[in-house]
Amino acid sequence: MEADRPALAVDIGGTKLAVGLVGPGGRLLSWDQTPTRRDLDAEGLWRTVDALITRVLDAAGLPASAGAGLGRRLAGLGCGCGGPMEWPAGLVSPINIPAWRGFPLRERLAERFGAAPVRVHNDAICLTAGEHWRGAGRGTRNMLGMVVSTGVGGGLILDGDLVQGASGNAGHIGHVPVYPDDGPVCGCGAVGCLEAVARGPALAAWAQSQGWRPGQTDATAKDLAADGAAGHPVGLAAMRRAGTALGIAIATATNLCDLEVVAIGGGLSQAGSLLFGPLEQALRAHTRLAFARQVRVVPAGLGQSAGLIGAAALVLAGDRYWTGD
Amino acid sequence: MEADRPALAVDIGGTKLAVGLVGPGGRLLSWDQTPTRRDLDAEGLWRTVDALITRVLDAAGLPASAGAGLGRRLAGLGCGCGGPMEWPAGLVSPINIPAWRGFPLRERLAERFGAAPVRVHNDAICLTAGEHWRGAGRGTRNMLGMVVSTGVGGGLILDGDLVQGASGNAGHIGHVPVYPDDGPVCGCGAVGCLEAVARGPALAAWAQSQGWRPGQTDATAKDLAADGAAGHPVGLAAMRRAGTALGIAIATATNLCDLEVVAIGGGLSQAGSLLFGPLEQALRAHTRLAFARQVRVVPAGLGQSAGLIGAAALVLAGDRYWTGD
Repeated sequence: MEADRPALAVDIGGTKLAVGLVGPGGRLLSWDQTPTRRDLDAEGLWRTVDALITRVLDAAGLPASAGAGLGRRLAGLGCGCGGPMEWPAGLVSPINIPAWRGFPLRERLAERFGAAPVRVHNDAICLTAGEHWRGAGRGTRNMLGMVVSTGVGGGLILDGDLVQGASGNAGHIGHVPVYPDDGPVCGCGAVGCLEAVARGPALAAWAQSQGWRPGQTDATAKDLAADGAAGHPVGLAAMRRAGTALGIAIATATNLCDLEVVAIGGGLSQAGSLLFGPLEQALRAHTRLAFARQVRVVPAGLGQSAGLIGAAALVLAGDRYWTGD
Repeated sequence: MEADRPALAVDIGGTKLAVGLVGPGGRLLSWDQTPTRRDLDAEGLWRTVDALITRVLDAAGLPASAGAGLGRRLAGLGCGCGGPMEWPAGLVSPINIPAWRGFPLRERLAERFGAAPVRVHNDAICLTAGEHWRGAGRGTRNMLGMVVSTGVGGGLILDGDLVQGASGNAGHIGHVPVYPDDGPVCGCGAVGCLEAVARGPALAAWAQSQGWRPGQTDATAKDLAADGAAGHPVGLAAMRRAGTALGIAIATATNLCDLEVVAIGGGLSQAGSLLFGPLEQALRAHTRLAFARQVRVVPAGLGQSAGLIGAAALVLAGDRYWTGD
C-alpha cells in the first residue's frame, strides 16, 4: 500500500543538509539545501535543520508547524543520516558530524513534525531504498546500493526485502576488508577496508603521495577524476585503485548474497569508465561461479536525488522499506 | 506451523551419502550411511541413494514404496546436496560428484517418494537451517552457517529468514576473496577465495609443500590438525593459516550483514582452539565497528547430525526454511 500524500524528506550528510518534498509516486517536487557548518554545536546544527525544514514547507505553501495540521497534509517524514546510529531509535553519531554524538534526531524530528510517522535510517540505506523503489534497482529482488563519497556506505535488498541485520547496520560494505594484509588503516581501526582505499579523501591523499599536485589546496576526488579524464597518470592510477577495490568488495557481496544488481551513487560514481572499467575487471576476476556472473553494476538511476527520494520511501513505501517501530 | 510426522532426510556429499528419519521436533531418530563411490555413473549412484533410502525405511518398519502409503506416514522428504544446483528445480551438479551434471535429483526423489513434499537445497544451506532451527543459532535472527570440509560452503539467515538470493545461491562464503592479490587459485578460477586457502585438501597440500610428511599417503586436514595438536610446527601453521582466512571472511560477512552468530560445522571445525584462536584474532582485527564486535563464532551445535536435521527442516519447518515451489 502506498501513501496518497507527499512526504517530507531530510538528508543529513557531512557536507550538506537537504530537505525536500517527495510526491506519493516518488517524484522530488521541491527541495533546498545548505552546507553542514562545522563550527556549530549540536543544538546549533539542529536549528539549521529546523530552519531548512521551515523554508521548504513555506515555499510549498504548507503550514510550518505541527499544530497547524501539518501531519494531516503529509504522509510523514523520512530522514537519512550518516552512520553509525542506534536504529530504530534514531540516536545518531555520524562519523563526519562530530557535533552530534548520540543526538536524538528521530525524537527531535518527531517533536517538530507532530503525529505522522517520523523515521530515520542510515543515508546509504535510504539511497538503497530509493534506488530499489524508483531507480536502477526497480523490479529486482536482490540488490546492493552503495554511496561512494566522503565515506563508502551501502544497503542490501535480499529476497525483495531491505535487510536490517541484528542492529539495523546491515550493508556496511565500506568495511569489507579488500587488502587485509597490507592495505591502508581505516578510520574504523582495521587494516585494508574498502573505505580506507576508496573514500574520496583517502584517494586524494594517496594521489598526492604519488606526486599529484592539484591546482587548489582543498582538492577532492572529483578534481582527481577530472585530472584522470584529462590524462594525468596519477589521476588514472587513482581511479584504477578505487575501481579495483570496489570490484573486489562487490564480488564479495555478490558471491555471498547472490545479487542481481549493484547501484552506485555518490560523487565518485560520476567518474564514468575511468572508475567502472577497472571495477568491472576486478569484479569479473573474482566472480567465476555461474550464478555470480549474472550481476550487473550500474550508476544510481536517481542521481543526486536518490538520498531524498530514498528517505521519503521510508514513509511513502514503508511496508517495503521500514520494519522498525 | 510444524509437522506432526517425521521426515525422511537425505544428505549427499562427495565423501558419503546419509539418510535418516527426523522426528517432527528435530531429533534424529535413526540413520544410515554409505560411501559416495567414485566409480559409479549417474544412474549407478542414484541406485545407491535409492537403496539406502529403502534400507532406512525398512529398519524403521515403514513401507519402502510410495504406493504403500509412505507419503501419509511421513511429513515429506528433505535433501541436502553439494552445490552448485539449479534451485528450486533441484538439478544438481556437485563439484565433488562428477557423475552428476544437471542430474534431476529432486524429480527422481519425488518419483521415488510419492505425494508428500520433496525439497532439495544446497547442503550448507541445510546445515544453516538445521543450526538455526535446533542448533547453535536457535533464537537468533541473523546468522551465518558454514561447512568447512572438502569445500567451504555457507548459508545466511537475515532478519529471521533464510536468504535465497537471485538464484538460491546466497551464502557462498567459500568464494569471498580473502587474498585477492596473491592468494592461491581456487577451483572456481578466481584468485584468493577463502575455499582455496581453507578447504581441507588445499590445507593438506599446502602443509606438504611446507615439509609436512604425514604417516599415510591419503592424509587429510584432520590428520594435519591432529599433528598440530601434537605440536608439529607445520600442523600449527596450517591451522593458523586456515583460521586467519576464515576470520577475515567472517569479518567480511559480519560487517556486510550485521550478524549475531556464526556456526561452523564440517570436519575442520573440530580442530578446536588451534583453529578458533587465529580465527578470533583475525575476526576481531577486522570488526572494529561497535555493531560488528557483537558477533559470536561457535562450532555447530548439532555436530555431525546438522546436515540431516537441516535437510529435514526444509519440510518439517518449511514455513521458515523453504520458499521454493
